[in-house]
Amino acid sequence: MPTYTIGIDLGGTNLKAALVERDEGLCESTRTPTDAEEGPEHVLDGIATIVQQLIDASPTGSVEGIGIGSPGAINWEGTTVSQPPNLPGWGTVNVRDELQSRLGDLPVYVENDANVAGLGTAFYGVGRPHDSFVMVTLGTGVGGAIIYNNKIFRGSTGAAGEIGHMTIDYAGPFERYGIGGSAEAYLGQQFLSHHARMRLLATDSKVHDIASTDLENLDPRMLYEAAEAGDGPARDMLAWAGHKLGVLLGSVVNLLDIRTIIVGGGVSAAGDYLLEPARETLPEYVIPPMRNDLKIVREKMGNEVSLLGAAQLAFAGDEAKV
Amino acid sequence: MPTYTIGIDLGGTNLKAALVERDEGLCESTRTPTDAEEGPEHVLDGIATIVQQLIDASPTGSVEGIGIGSPGAINWEGTTVSQPPNLPGWGTVNVRDELQSRLGDLPVYVENDANVAGLGTAFYGVGRPHDSFVMVTLGTGVGGAIIYNNKIFRGSTGAAGEIGHMTIDYAGPFERYGIGGSAEAYLGQQFLSHHARMRLLATDSKVHDIASTDLENLDPRMLYEAAEAGDGPARDMLAWAGHKLGVLLGSVVNLLDIRTIIVGGGVSAAGDYLLEPARETLPEYVIPPMRNDLKIVREKMGNEVSLLGAAQLAFAGDEAKV
Repeated sequence: MPTYTIGIDLGGTNLKAALVERDEGLCESTRTPTDAEEGPEHVLDGIATIVQQLIDASPTGSVEGIGIGSPGAINWEGTTVSQPPNLPGWGTVNVRDELQSRLGDLPVYVENDANVAGLGTAFYGVGRPHDSFVMVTLGTGVGGAIIYNNKIFRGSTGAAGEIGHMTIDYAGPFERYGIGGSAEAYLGQQFLSHHARMRLLATDSKVHDIASTDLENLDPRMLYEAAEAGDGPARDMLAWAGHKLGVLLGSVVNLLDIRTIIVGGGVSAAGDYLLEPARETLPEYVIPPMRNDLKIVREKMGNEVSLLGAAQLAFAGDEAKV
Repeated sequence: MPTYTIGIDLGGTNLKAALVERDEGLCESTRTPTDAEEGPEHVLDGIATIVQQLIDASPTGSVEGIGIGSPGAINWEGTTVSQPPNLPGWGTVNVRDELQSRLGDLPVYVENDANVAGLGTAFYGVGRPHDSFVMVTLGTGVGGAIIYNNKIFRGSTGAAGEIGHMTIDYAGPFERYGIGGSAEAYLGQQFLSHHARMRLLATDSKVHDIASTDLENLDPRMLYEAAEAGDGPARDMLAWAGHKLGVLLGSVVNLLDIRTIIVGGGVSAAGDYLLEPARETLPEYVIPPMRNDLKIVREKMGNEVSLLGAAQLAFAGDEAKV
């Protein structure tokens, strides 16, 4: 009999869940609005409902456990979620207990959403050939996860992997946490958009045709679009961002001796306009004995990778983490 | 019967060895010139000789194994040393096989010297109260080690912990590997001395009384001496360096979620003139949820920590590493 787990992506807007078979991957998936403003009891009921739907759709007794990728801080045991951004009223919730009281004694494992995405990439995405890699997610913020020998490296409290807040220029611009010159201050969507607007306002870049007057709505997707259309200034701007990414990753490689980097998230859609300059810059910021085997690879799977990672969390149980 | 191991510090100038009892710590120690220029066979014979002396000085059969801290790259299995700087003609040497052929079948474990110092601090130094910490060694270079749950975090090939080459200013000054703005370009002994000379040449700092004309021989020890004598410019200079250390450590904490930092090495003798500014700067470069429990502690044990760490390597065997 095939064995399944259910992976859940607990987001501020949508709850997503998938029935996953260990070798086959994603079999069924479903989503429902989170209705986060209704508070934790409502959200937990919603999770229980979509999990039950997937259990009902699978052979009796074949679902081995539930894995959940959640925002916020997760305790060491992988049971509670604290202060999740976008989920008002949560404080600290023991998600394992709450789901077991609704669904019976299925094993439940909770982990930080960035780490879960890393695990999904490791077992079902472009990370499969690599035992260890660092995942960087370029989106609204710049997130990350460390996968070490196919396990999540959690650090002392489970918060490891905050790559986006590592500083590449101590005197550089501030980001949302007031950290000077962190990677997010260059590569976070809002920051990259701002840098690009300033850089391109006085050029005759094609982004002027794509964005509104004065480039007030400029976003990284538009840079990519203009770059694809052959626009030099847009390509230069993405290369500027790629350079910053390469610098950041150099520090990461020196510290961890993990030489494969996997880049995901919306901004990574800029693809080689961003990643090729990062690949050129990376070895310049890595010590010579570690310059071989450097790789920057793009994860093209989107949200699916989070659902698969959450399911893998349940397959691996406590073995998912180091 | 007490159990012992022998810890060895394989240096370019001296071979040091110690008989260590698990709970008591260092019982006997010895040293001999490495005579590195005589090549690996000679050095290995020298190691075997001092090990045999320590075995002869201990109760028959009480020595359980040998641990060696070595420069250069160590393979995953902890048996071979490759391209150790300061040890000419080594290429790759299987130190385990070579010592076992000279000494019989005692277990032999080899590990990178920075990692071994970290392990020594974890089990016999100021790291004892902490399961996880990052060790930074401020000396000629800026080295480091990651101790995670009382084990050495090795990374993919055993080279993890190259903290000194992480960049804190991508457009900053180059260090010996051509990396721009790495920590070593500010804090490495030669670089710190150069920065200090430039900064202090045109001041009336007391270092002018301590160093030779034009401050050509200025070194960090002299800065510390002047700071102790109440010299403002020297204190400011050490605070400048401490700020750079704090920035660097912020990146380390964000990535690893390891919040205890242990600082050793000769330059750390500057003590709180250096470390207090680092402590002030660190939280400014760490994301708010990780700002509690930050600690920067000085390891005052010198070379002893390397001998104790090498001995611990032999006590723990493969369990010493993650």
